[in-house]
Amino acid sequence: MAHSESGTASPTPRRPQLSQSARPATFNVATINEQGQSGTAAIAGEHPLTIYVDKREILTLMTLGAAPEALVIGYLRNQRLVESIDDVLAVQVDWEVNAVSVYTRNGLVDLDEKMAHRTKTTGCGSGTVFGDLMADIDTIHLPDTQYSPRLRQSTLYALSELVRKHETIYKQAGAVHGCALFSTTPELLYFVEDVGRHNAVDAIAGMMWLDGVDGSDKIFYTTGRLTSEMVIKAAQMDVPFLVSRSGLTQMGYEIAKKVGMTMIGRAVNKHFLLFNDPGRFVFDVVIAANDE
Amino acid sequence: MAHSESGTASPTPRRPQLSQSARPATFNVATINEQGQSGTAAIAGEHPLTIYVDKREILTLMTLGAAPEALVIGYLRNQRLVESIDDVLAVQVDWEVNAVSVYTRNGLVDLDEKMAHRTKTTGCGSGTVFGDLMADIDTIHLPDTQYSPRLRQSTLYALSELVRKHETIYKQAGAVHGCALFSTTPELLYFVEDVGRHNAVDAIAGMMWLDGVDGSDKIFYTTGRLTSEMVIKAAQMDVPFLVSRSGLTQMGYEIAKKVGMTMIGRAVNKHFLLFNDPGRFVFDVVIAANDE
Repeated sequence: MAHSESGTASPTPRRPQLSQSARPATFNVATINEQGQSGTAAIAGEHPLTIYVDKREILTLMTLGAAPEALVIGYLRNQRLVESIDDVLAVQVDWEVNAVSVYTRNGLVDLDEKMAHRTKTTGCGSGTVFGDLMADIDTIHLPDTQYSPRLRQSTLYALSELVRKHETIYKQAGAVHGCALFSTTPELLYFVEDVGRHNAVDAIAGMMWLDGVDGSDKIFYTTGRLTSEMVIKAAQMDVPFLVSRSGLTQMGYEIAKKVGMTMIGRAVNKHFLLFNDPGRFVFDVVIAANDE
Repeated sequence: MAHSESGTASPTPRRPQLSQSARPATFNVATINEQGQSGTAAIAGEHPLTIYVDKREILTLMTLGAAPEALVIGYLRNQRLVESIDDVLAVQVDWEVNAVSVYTRNGLVDLDEKMAHRTKTTGCGSGTVFGDLMADIDTIHLPDTQYSPRLRQSTLYALSELVRKHETIYKQAGAVHGCALFSTTPELLYFVEDVGRHNAVDAIAGMMWLDGVDGSDKIFYTTGRLTSEMVIKAAQMDVPFLVSRSGLTQMGYEIAKKVGMTMIGRAVNKHFLLFNDPGRFVFDVVIAANDE
């Protein structure tokens, strides 16, 4: 499924009508520090955003609000409620009422069935549908290692450094996770921070659809942990490389193994751990045992 | 509401029949490090656990599985599906089928209404009901500052140190958040790590119910961010002090202000930021400007 999606990408993708309604990312509030001194600190925004599709209420996300239109498109994509970006006619965010109205060409796919199923699986993987996704993981096969692009160790170091420079909200306010998509150059294609990991990855999925970007030769980076949900979403986007400076969970590991994903965890400075690589990673930097 | 709950606590609380089914917290998997050397690393467990109450399927949580019985009781408490621990007759976890069977005295409170509502609010605050909780936040009032216990700066430092010593899973495998409940002594009453922040706080809510522990003179500590969900849950447990070494979000801040909660963020080494204290915090340590 992920393959056929990426196969439909065209050089001039059709774009739905979109509002441009990013919220301010941080807000200043009064603080007292350990010396008893008054001051102010930046804190990250967190706003409810209720999704209506063709006037039907679907659910409410809590988001920083940096890329709400792409977030909602990516959410519908990753939940497989919409099959193609061509089915999305318009996405209009209205922060006056904390709502987003989505209009589709053909309605949502199996909405009632999926809503019923979600009732059973809510709470999984930070609030998004899980059972459905797991059921379909068998149908996902990442590009064969033989034909797949390679990730070089030097590229890994370069892209980690690019992320570090882009984390503007995290540096100011903390309390957010960042996700990024890279080419193997490495070029930073997208970078999104949000109060929820699942939102940041959904927003990137939305941007990829909007721009007709194929995931099969890309690297997905996240500052957050590699849980089952994160791995499933990367696999759905067809991305063969998943990198994090945090750790991973057993289920994330097992799903990555099943779909043949190259996983890199604990990537901090020169250190990293490579999990489950089917031959795509290339060691091209000599690191002495006592190097940082 | 939180008050009347804590008011029912008795010195010898009634305990439901509980299984004792903790899962192993970590698993070893094969890795290759930055020098190309093979090795193994511990990763955190992550398991689906489907909750059945009186034989009806409610939802599936993803959990480390360290305290599944308390987690499920705390989940039902924090969603206000059960009004008192006395209503819980038995909690039986069976990892063979990744399921937990809960038996209640009187069934769940407004289950159908809440399930319908949840359908609308899924995805909020890491996967748990949100709209309902927010609606009732107006009814929660934390203990008046005048009669409330105080938190001393020296106590804050002591309890942060106690947490640091207890983070066994985090130190081994990362990818988990820890939550703890302290008395003002400070004595560490409970400490739970889980792959989800919301699970760790729910498990502590369950333990408090099982042991008849009142929150109104306690301190809640979390390694994770102070989002709306975390603040709402602490407020429901009647806890006036919420401490984190991470940052906070705007909505977490606003809810804390509304209920009169003393919030401390970015508590690392001697540093911290005090947000929204209505007079409960006592500075009793002299910190020079260039101290760590």
